[in-house]
Amino acid sequence: MLKSPFQSIFKTLVIGSAFLALSSSAQTLTDNETKELSQLTNTALQSDVSYKILESLTTEVGHRLMGSEGDKKSIVWAQAKMRALGFDKVWTEEVTGTFWQRGEAQAKIIAPYPHKVVVIALGGSIATSKQGLTAQVAHFETLADLKAVPDNSLHGKIAFVSYQMERHINGKGYGPAVGTRVGGAVVAAKKGASALIMRSVGTDNNRIAHTGIMRYEAGVNKIPAAAISNPDADLLVNQLKRNKPVSFYLKLTAHTDPKVTAISANVIGEITGSEFPNEIVSIGAHLDSWDVGTGALDDGMGVAMMLASAHHIAQLPKRPKRTIRVILFAAEEVGLLGAKKYMELHKDNMANHIIGAEWDFGVGKIYKMTSGVSKAALPAIDSLAKYLAPLGVKLSNENNASAQSDMSLMSAAGMPSMNFSPDGSKYFDYHHTENDTLDKVNPEDLKQATAVYTTFAYFAAQSGINFRK
Amino acid sequence: MLKSPFQSIFKTLVIGSAFLALSSSAQTLTDNETKELSQLTNTALQSDVSYKILESLTTEVGHRLMGSEGDKKSIVWAQAKMRALGFDKVWTEEVTGTFWQRGEAQAKIIAPYPHKVVVIALGGSIATSKQGLTAQVAHFETLADLKAVPDNSLHGKIAFVSYQMERHINGKGYGPAVGTRVGGAVVAAKKGASALIMRSVGTDNNRIAHTGIMRYEAGVNKIPAAAISNPDADLLVNQLKRNKPVSFYLKLTAHTDPKVTAISANVIGEITGSEFPNEIVSIGAHLDSWDVGTGALDDGMGVAMMLASAHHIAQLPKRPKRTIRVILFAAEEVGLLGAKKYMELHKDNMANHIIGAEWDFGVGKIYKMTSGVSKAALPAIDSLAKYLAPLGVKLSNENNASAQSDMSLMSAAGMPSMNFSPDGSKYFDYHHTENDTLDKVNPEDLKQATAVYTTFAYFAAQSGINFRK
Repeated sequence: MLKSPFQSIFKTLVIGSAFLALSSSAQTLTDNETKELSQLTNTALQSDVSYKILESLTTEVGHRLMGSEGDKKSIVWAQAKMRALGFDKVWTEEVTGTFWQRGEAQAKIIAPYPHKVVVIALGGSIATSKQGLTAQVAHFETLADLKAVPDNSLHGKIAFVSYQMERHINGKGYGPAVGTRVGGAVVAAKKGASALIMRSVGTDNNRIAHTGIMRYEAGVNKIPAAAISNPDADLLVNQLKRNKPVSFYLKLTAHTDPKVTAISANVIGEITGSEFPNEIVSIGAHLDSWDVGTGALDDGMGVAMMLASAHHIAQLPKRPKRTIRVILFAAEEVGLLGAKKYMELHKDNMANHIIGAEWDFGVGKIYKMTSGVSKAALPAIDSLAKYLAPLGVKLSNENNASAQSDMSLMSAAGMPSMNFSPDGSKYFDYHHTENDTLDKVNPEDLKQATAVYTTFAYFAAQSGINFRK
Repeated sequence: MLKSPFQSIFKTLVIGSAFLALSSSAQTLTDNETKELSQLTNTALQSDVSYKILESLTTEVGHRLMGSEGDKKSIVWAQAKMRALGFDKVWTEEVTGTFWQRGEAQAKIIAPYPHKVVVIALGGSIATSKQGLTAQVAHFETLADLKAVPDNSLHGKIAFVSYQMERHINGKGYGPAVGTRVGGAVVAAKKGASALIMRSVGTDNNRIAHTGIMRYEAGVNKIPAAAISNPDADLLVNQLKRNKPVSFYLKLTAHTDPKVTAISANVIGEITGSEFPNEIVSIGAHLDSWDVGTGALDDGMGVAMMLASAHHIAQLPKRPKRTIRVILFAAEEVGLLGAKKYMELHKDNMANHIIGAEWDFGVGKIYKMTSGVSKAALPAIDSLAKYLAPLGVKLSNENNASAQSDMSLMSAAGMPSMNFSPDGSKYFDYHHTENDTLDKVNPEDLKQATAVYTTFAYFAAQSGINFRK
C-alpha cells in the first residue's frame, strides 16, 4: 500500500531511473554532488570528531547497563551531544524493562589443587546462596555433549562447558559459541546441575571473563550461570585431565529486583531533509553497554561514528534532500529492548525508512559492504561502492544483508539495508569484558569507519534512490 | 688464591689449551662429544618434558609467593620432580624472611566522573585505613616530576605517576619505569602525599594491573602504594585533562605480620660430574612467584627449562665431567633472598662455580647470547656459539654479561657467566600480573630455550674450559 510519504519517492525514482536506464554504473549524484561528497568523505577521514565523542562518552559516562546510573547519564549526554553537533531535532522515546544487577562474583577450584578463578556472572543470572555453592565439576566439551546426557543425571554437580570460540575476521566463531551462554543454564538445569560454568565466549587469553545475556525458560529450574576466563578454563581442563574429582566453589550475588522497572530511552536525532524530510535514511548504534569496561567498542564506537557522520553532513552549506536519522538504541545488550520499542512506535512508518545501516561490531577497518536492497537499486549500490572503494571497502556480490543488531528488526520489517563489515578479528578479544575500553580503538580505523557511514548517509539522502525491494 | 678444587681446572686447562692454541675456533669437544651434544640438543629440541614440568607446576601448585602455601608446596614439588627426573643429589637450603600478604584492593574515581578502577597493591605496601582513603589526585608524568615538587607540598593528596613503560625486545623499557614502583612511595611520602598510585609497569593494554616489590625507607612515613592498569591510567589522565578536581578512593588491606617468619628454601639438585664433581656448572631460575597468575613465565618457565635440561643430560649413558647444579632460588621477587642466602652459604666455594646462567626473562625464543668470561675463554665461547647457531642464537660481541636475576650476585662475586637473551617484547605484557599463566608460553619457544640451556650445560660440563677471568 502506497502512502503519501511515498509520493516523494516516486519523484525521486523519476530522476534516479533516468540515470539507471543509462548503464549499470549509472550516475546517481550530479557532478557537483559528487564533488561535495568527495570533500565530505575527506573531511570525515581527517576529522577526530568521532574520537573526541568516544573519549567523552567513555571518560564522562562510562558503562551504561540498562537501568544503571550510567545508562541515565548517557541519555542526557547523547541529547546534549546531538544538540552541540548541529542536529536539527533531538528527542527520546522511553524504553522500559527489568534492572539486573551484577553484584559480586567469586570462584575457585577447591580440589585437587586449589586456585582462584576469574569469573563473571552471565547477564540475567540469579545468585547462588549467600555462602556460595561447592560441587564437583562435570565437564562437557560442547553444549551438544551436555544436551546428550540423561535428564537429572547431574544432581549435585556443576556443569562446565569448555568449548573455545574460534577467531575469524567476520566473527563467525561467535555463533557456535554463544549458544552455551544464552541457553546453557536451561540445558544444565534440565540435567539436574546446580550451576553452569562455561569458558568465556571470547578469543583472547586474558584472565578476564566475558559476560553477555543468558535466558531462563518457564518451567525449568533457574540455576546460577557464569563464565570463567580462557586461561582459567584451560587450568580447569588440565586439572580434570588428572582424573581426580575436581571440586569448584562459585558465589554470585547477582539479582533482578522484580519491583523495580528500569527506565531507559532510545535517543534519536535528525538532520532534516531539505526536499523530502519524511524520507528517512537511518543510521544507528546502541547507547547501552554491559556494566564492565566503558563500552568503548560495544557500542561506543558506533555511537561516536553515527553522531560524527551526521555532524559532518550538518556542516555542509545545505541539508541533503532526505532526512538523516541517528537512532541510538537503548537496552540492546539485554535483548534488543530499544529496537523492539522502536518497531512498536514506528511500525506504521516503516515504509518511510528508505534505507538503514547500524554499527555494532566495533573494532578494525571496514573492508566490505553488503547490500540488502531491490534488484533495481543494485546499480546505485555499485555507484556507492565506487565512492567507498578509495576507503578500502569492497562490495560483496551478495545482496542479502540485514542491518546489524537492533536494526535487523527493521530489515526484517522490509527496510532496505546496508551492512558494513569491519575486520572483526580482535573484536571478541574484548567483547563484553572489562577490557572494552578506549585504548582498544585505533583512531585511524575509527576515522575510516566514520567516513564510510558519512559517505553512505549523504549518498542515500542526496541521491534519491529507491532502495526498497 | 688457588684452592684444591682448582687442581682439576688446571688439568682441564691443559687439554683446553691444546685446542685453543690451534685457532680461535678451537675445538673444545672431541668428535664423539660433539656428536653426543648434537644428539642431546636435538633431544631437547623435540622434547615436551619442559612443557610438562611447567604444566605440572602451574596446575598442581599455582602461585608461590614467599611464605605462602604455594611456596611451601613448590618446595616439595621441586624436590620430587628432581628425583623423578634422575638427579643424583637433591637438597634444600632454608631461606627466611617476612611474609607479606596482599589482602584486598579496591579503587575508584569518585569525581568528576565515577569509575571503578582496576588496582593492585605493590608488594610490601601497607594497608590504607579500614574504610580506605579518598583524596584529590596530584598528577606527575614521571618520578622526576614528583621529586621536583617541594617537600610537604602534597598533604591530603594522592600522588599519581602516569609514566608509560616502553616496549623493547630486550626489555630495556623496564629500567626507566620500575623506579617509581620501587621508590615512588618514599618520594611521595616526603612530599606529604597520603598514598602513591602509579600506572602499571607493563606494556599491555589490559584491565589487569602489575604488582612488584616496593620499598620503604627508615625515617620516612610509610604510605600505601598501588598500581592501576594501563587503561585505567589512561582514563584517569583523560579526566585530569578536564581541569576539574579528580577525587580518588583507594582501599588496601595488605599487611606484613611482624611476628611471622616466612620460611622458604632454595631447592638444589645436581647431576654429579664424572671426573670433576667439585666443579660446578650452575644453571638456575627462581621457584617463587608473585601471588597472582600461576607464575608460568616468571619464573616457572625457567624452573621447567633447568629441570628438563639436567634431565636430558642425566639420560646420557655417562655423566659429563663436571657437576651440573640446578639452583631453584627462593624469594627472588621479594628481594633476592634466596640468592643472598646462597651467597652466604657458598661464598667460600664460589671459585668452584665454573660458570653459570640463570633464566628469569621468560617468554619468546632466545636470539642472543652474551658471555662474561675470561678473554682466554672467548674462543671456547665461539665454539659454544657454533653449537647454538642452528637454534637461532647469535653471539654478542660484548663480553660483559652477568647472569640474570639471582645469579647476578654470583657473577658479581666472580663467577664466569652467560646471559641468554630471549625476545622479550611481550614479557612485560604479563609480568607480575594475573595474566602470567601457562597459555602465554609458546611450547615451541620453550623447547628452543630448553635446548639452549641443555647445550650450554653439557658443553660447559664436558669441555673442561676454564671460563674464569
